[in-house]
Amino acid sequence: MTRTDDSRYLKGGPVAQRIIASVREDAAIAAAEGFPPKLVSITVGDTAAVDVYVRNQRAKAALAGIGFEERRFAADITAGELEAAIHGLNADPRVTGIIIQRPVPAHIPIKTLQAAVHPLKDVEGMHPASIGNIVYNQLDLAPCTAAASVELLKETGLELKGLEVVVVGHSEIVGKPIAFLLMSEGATVTVCHHMTRSVATHARRADALFVAVGKPRLIKADMVKPGACVIDIGINSEIGPDGESRIVGDVDTDSVKEVASWITPVPSGVGPLTVAILLRNTMVALNRQRALYRATYGVADQLAAE
Amino acid sequence: MTRTDDSRYLKGGPVAQRIIASVREDAAIAAAEGFPPKLVSITVGDTAAVDVYVRNQRAKAALAGIGFEERRFAADITAGELEAAIHGLNADPRVTGIIIQRPVPAHIPIKTLQAAVHPLKDVEGMHPASIGNIVYNQLDLAPCTAAASVELLKETGLELKGLEVVVVGHSEIVGKPIAFLLMSEGATVTVCHHMTRSVATHARRADALFVAVGKPRLIKADMVKPGACVIDIGINSEIGPDGESRIVGDVDTDSVKEVASWITPVPSGVGPLTVAILLRNTMVALNRQRALYRATYGVADQLAAE
Repeated sequence: MTRTDDSRYLKGGPVAQRIIASVREDAAIAAAEGFPPKLVSITVGDTAAVDVYVRNQRAKAALAGIGFEERRFAADITAGELEAAIHGLNADPRVTGIIIQRPVPAHIPIKTLQAAVHPLKDVEGMHPASIGNIVYNQLDLAPCTAAASVELLKETGLELKGLEVVVVGHSEIVGKPIAFLLMSEGATVTVCHHMTRSVATHARRADALFVAVGKPRLIKADMVKPGACVIDIGINSEIGPDGESRIVGDVDTDSVKEVASWITPVPSGVGPLTVAILLRNTMVALNRQRALYRATYGVADQLAAE
Repeated sequence: MTRTDDSRYLKGGPVAQRIIASVREDAAIAAAEGFPPKLVSITVGDTAAVDVYVRNQRAKAALAGIGFEERRFAADITAGELEAAIHGLNADPRVTGIIIQRPVPAHIPIKTLQAAVHPLKDVEGMHPASIGNIVYNQLDLAPCTAAASVELLKETGLELKGLEVVVVGHSEIVGKPIAFLLMSEGATVTVCHHMTRSVATHARRADALFVAVGKPRLIKADMVKPGACVIDIGINSEIGPDGESRIVGDVDTDSVKEVASWITPVPSGVGPLTVAILLRNTMVALNRQRALYRATYGVADQLAAE
């Protein structure tokens, strides 16, 4: 397909491969030192919607040499029981990171679960303390989609200091973390959303435009500054002219790519990179845990080895 | 002095009085129910620079009916000993909130101390988890100066949804929290700083302009949109034409007040309000602690009473 061969396309796949190769080296060293990294995935109730994601995580973890264990809980489990299970994983030194697959049944408050994961095992970067740490310029463990989006911007080689960035979408785990990550890198960041008077006015002055709102083709060519970098984080399902279901982003890619210098395709832009970031976060978490062991016990790393 | 009688001035004093009166009512009720609120102030080493602040906090706490205890530690205390003292206060049910007076001696890492305060006792709103909670739209406990600045904007009666806000200064405890607080209220927020290409270009389109950079008179009249609200958070000491030392903000108040519709004077704008916010945060912390007691023990509030 000629479209994705266009050099303007910022594809996630090659970056993901590079990150996974690097994680694989680090994971092998850690394992040899007695700290094999391991993820635990928690699913609750009907998992049909998440099975494809979990399978993908498991496959990529295997590529990186990271253990992956699935724990499946019944749909009628109480929030308290689930919290207790998470506390057990928090206390288990063989577990490096905990992933809570969404959605969970409606009677389980997802934010309570995310907050129950110990910040040192929060590989998804969603605990309030993880978000706060980004604000405090500790940027190495961030929510996966936000970090993947920023990683693709860095691929352009654009100087981040002073870069005019506009983020459309102010969600807690995508839009806002992208904003703090880039503020910390020296960019000048504006966050727009559904209450913004004129998104177009802001979008048109952006050197880098991030879009994460879930509205197909919201961003048209006339809303993009010539030469800009456009990172499309939307994932929308729609019926194409051929009657088939397809995935499209929040950006009208065909027209915008004639104006932008770089644009992420959907799918195969940000998407493939998020799991690689999850694995990289796992190594960050492992290193933080090992630093805590050293600080606490002041002995050789072998202590916590099995 | 006619200047501060100008109706364009947003003064912190009257708002502070209103907040303290409200805190006083809540504190009296909590005390009657067996939960008298109490602050502990920690100073380390030479306290000359902070004595005036601590005295003011003590006086305002007394006005609000909140206990205030000072703990002074020697300059040569280790970070570990100080952390241990903080953990003791975390565990003491009679202590509602812990204030770490800055500066501390250079050998003590201030961020480690702030992170040692339990988030439920973090009345200064500086723990990473407190910052993260703001990002997650839990806005009732924020860093005092940031919250005071937003409180003064609210005094104007301007509709925050869709308001174009520009924050000049991206510090972790002032600029960034102002940005998240206002994003959560529906404003469109841009954060500028010393790497921003043109602060003036952004400042000129702001309906509300917050300035917290520590540069006397950085913001001139030609950088302000007519009718804007200007919140000046700078506190700079300089020698006036009369040879006397005086405090000025980051805004050239005399010229900007001819353009802006509202402006905070320095001093007596944001400053007087910060301690009132600290006391309000104390009541928020107390209520969260009581909610935890109820959730944990499932018994009447009297349990934790002395």
